[in-house]
Amino acid sequence: MGIDARIFKTLERNNINVSIVSQGSSERGIGLVVDSNKAKWAKNALDAEFEGDYATKDINMITVMEEVSVVSIVGQDLSTFHLPYNALIKNQIVPLLFNNTVSGKNVSLVVKKTDLNKALNVMHGQIFGISNKVNLALFGHGNVGGTLIDQILKSAKSIEERKGIDVRIFAIANSRKVLFDKKGVSKNWKHAIQEKGISYTLDDIFAYARDNHLENLIAVDNTASQDFVGHYLDFVSNGFDLVSSNKIANTLGFDYYRSLRAELAKKQKQYLYETNVGAGLPLIDTIKLLHLSGENITRIKGVFSGSLSYIFNTFSESEKRFSEILKDAMNSGYTEPDPREDLSGNDVGRKLLILARELDLSNEFPDIDIENLIPETLRKGKVEEFLTQLDVLDEKFEAIKERQQQDHVLRYVGDLYGDLQKEKGILEVKLISVPKQSALGQVKGSDSIIEIYTESYGEHPLVIQGAGAGAAVTARGVFGDILRIADKGRKI
Amino acid sequence: MGIDARIFKTLERNNINVSIVSQGSSERGIGLVVDSNKAKWAKNALDAEFEGDYATKDINMITVMEEVSVVSIVGQDLSTFHLPYNALIKNQIVPLLFNNTVSGKNVSLVVKKTDLNKALNVMHGQIFGISNKVNLALFGHGNVGGTLIDQILKSAKSIEERKGIDVRIFAIANSRKVLFDKKGVSKNWKHAIQEKGISYTLDDIFAYARDNHLENLIAVDNTASQDFVGHYLDFVSNGFDLVSSNKIANTLGFDYYRSLRAELAKKQKQYLYETNVGAGLPLIDTIKLLHLSGENITRIKGVFSGSLSYIFNTFSESEKRFSEILKDAMNSGYTEPDPREDLSGNDVGRKLLILARELDLSNEFPDIDIENLIPETLRKGKVEEFLTQLDVLDEKFEAIKERQQQDHVLRYVGDLYGDLQKEKGILEVKLISVPKQSALGQVKGSDSIIEIYTESYGEHPLVIQGAGAGAAVTARGVFGDILRIADKGRKI
Repeated sequence: MGIDARIFKTLERNNINVSIVSQGSSERGIGLVVDSNKAKWAKNALDAEFEGDYATKDINMITVMEEVSVVSIVGQDLSTFHLPYNALIKNQIVPLLFNNTVSGKNVSLVVKKTDLNKALNVMHGQIFGISNKVNLALFGHGNVGGTLIDQILKSAKSIEERKGIDVRIFAIANSRKVLFDKKGVSKNWKHAIQEKGISYTLDDIFAYARDNHLENLIAVDNTASQDFVGHYLDFVSNGFDLVSSNKIANTLGFDYYRSLRAELAKKQKQYLYETNVGAGLPLIDTIKLLHLSGENITRIKGVFSGSLSYIFNTFSESEKRFSEILKDAMNSGYTEPDPREDLSGNDVGRKLLILARELDLSNEFPDIDIENLIPETLRKGKVEEFLTQLDVLDEKFEAIKERQQQDHVLRYVGDLYGDLQKEKGILEVKLISVPKQSALGQVKGSDSIIEIYTESYGEHPLVIQGAGAGAAVTARGVFGDILRIADKGRKI
Repeated sequence: MGIDARIFKTLERNNINVSIVSQGSSERGIGLVVDSNKAKWAKNALDAEFEGDYATKDINMITVMEEVSVVSIVGQDLSTFHLPYNALIKNQIVPLLFNNTVSGKNVSLVVKKTDLNKALNVMHGQIFGISNKVNLALFGHGNVGGTLIDQILKSAKSIEERKGIDVRIFAIANSRKVLFDKKGVSKNWKHAIQEKGISYTLDDIFAYARDNHLENLIAVDNTASQDFVGHYLDFVSNGFDLVSSNKIANTLGFDYYRSLRAELAKKQKQYLYETNVGAGLPLIDTIKLLHLSGENITRIKGVFSGSLSYIFNTFSESEKRFSEILKDAMNSGYTEPDPREDLSGNDVGRKLLILARELDLSNEFPDIDIENLIPETLRKGKVEEFLTQLDVLDEKFEAIKERQQQDHVLRYVGDLYGDLQKEKGILEVKLISVPKQSALGQVKGSDSIIEIYTESYGEHPLVIQGAGAGAAVTARGVFGDILRIADKGRKI
């Protein structure tokens, strides 16, 4: 008698009902689901039946998997089963067994009991057209982070209506405290942090997401912390996609840059950072797509820093002293608390490096030729001390301004050029004098402007211009990245 | 004795081996795969065994499905099974039955025999990390279409290396002839069309794709044909995604606009058309994402027509007569063969309407207030006749030029404004006079410039500027859309 017939006869004889049966074509085994209180009994009975077959090696082993749950999707057409299945995999739930009934549109899934709640959550959304929940953990709730939270809360309803994506913030954290809310924080989140914020480790956040069966997890980094970047891979292995306005992960060593991407690919997770350069301006995505489609990008040049744009635009137009304008910029919050962070040119250098790497160039930070605007004697020491010695800067920049040709203005630019098909490009960050009538010369206020030169566009670059800094536009750019991730893979 | 035991005993008795067995949890049925030459016999034997159960309705029916093939994926982990499964569904292959073996990493699929070849094709790519083939049917091989073919052929290898996408063109057609090549056309495609091009109907193209088991189909419309747009839904039902530089489908009635999108959603297909406005400039995608993320877009304004940009930029700067510049533009191929197509403003109107609809406004073409630059008396009649009467235009535009304030220039702009949160926006297309120093006034050559005003950006618009027309940049934009579709759903 064949194996299958003997199995079912044996179970029959022992009064054990079988629900799911799954046997593959190459007859490597057969899977049976029985009531958990009969599992041991079933195994004993089958062991006895097949005792002789063990010896002849016709049967290899019979194992029992405990603590499983059966999910049955009734009415499931296989032409749309990829949607709930994708949702499961995206949320790191791997079924132990699945099969369907030929007629009757019925799919059965066996999952670990611990995965059951989350499995039902994620599949419900896909199957019943209920909105897909996206659960965010936000790190940093200062200027950009705080604005983002408000933007999300304001738009959540209309995004759900129009795209079927239900965006929720289940955790808001800074370096000290976290506020949890599995149903999503509400408008009074600032007050709630004060009242209910608790100190935490990242493991607490992972555990909270797990214990509450939260699906479609995205970690959003609006900090400027290098420590936090060190945990990106922990997020990835805990099932999070990543969005960040933090530039650090993209400007560390090129080896790290590449290994982060390899790990993301392996774990099928995404990392988006459109706001790393030019805040909400559509720069990185544009460059990525041009490059991918084989467009030969020959040069990228522009004013990348909102604060330095403001400072030199004002300095070029007005009679005010440089120090006065710098202090205005500081008071308006355009600069970092220590304005030397901006004037050092490192921030612009980082942005240029990020773009270079998007073009598959393997440049490193020390490759960048950066003109530091701060005289060497003023580079160290406290900011208060620095601010008492601004006369030196006034003298320096007044002289540069006067040396210019007529109708020229000063601009602090980043410039990526060279043979960009090779391994490394030339990256320069420097103060230049340009005709007032040129595109760079026309930039106003704290706007950024980026010129992308390509083979197809020839001498006329593609120009993208607008507010390249500021909480509202940066937050909107981060929001865009979140929606791109939420949208991808929803339908194929 | 239970049903399962009786089934297997009966088959056993008749010497019929069973490979795949699939029984769902709700016991609505059990599926068995047996050798096709034993199928009838198996059914007869089971019918006899269950004769009495038919009467008591314990058994409903036993059916045989002929002409099926079994695909067995050995070594398939369920954590990555979504990739080959997505590829199947994307290519409209729905398995009849699937299941796995709990141990042994084995997935079995039963598909219709006619689907077998294509099923193996599409799954191979996903499982063995072989590049995903994307098969294009290109319509229109004039300026834009021809350039696109050359761009694709030139970049195909590097895209395959970098993204694992193998882009092939299996059909190139114009309104009369098609060139087929299932392995993808090669560099000498122009010559091949002459030698091997055959007359065709669309059904021939669908049949060719089907008969050659071509997967991941995209139809690319670089025609300007309204007839062709009438077949978009045929492509969708035959499993094609759509990319087009043709603007017509987006500027027909709003009902059609909405129903096309509903059908695409239902069939899980995409339609991208980034080049409909501003050629290769990243406009539509930027506006879509800003709008989706809840950014309140308050106005979109700009120079949308490359030909009219050239004409008025030159006219504003030089002493030449309008007619002379118009003829230069014609001779340089900047205008349509009948330049009244451009001067009527309809093309700019269409572009503005496309943007309005991206903002969920339900405007119709007749809602647009278009300033037709051609005097009424010259609107009809042959182009040759029109060209003999250009004195009228010279007089008209010279007068307008002279009436301007000092340091002002003429620009033909599209302007979308009003309360854009309501049902309809205000759409105006008109000739205006702007300060030479303004962003619009600074546009050079045949560049386009588009200003996007939003709540977050305030008074400073996001500005995107560059070549808004031309074969190379338009083709590159179309290429970008193809890659977006090829990339989406590859990984989740």
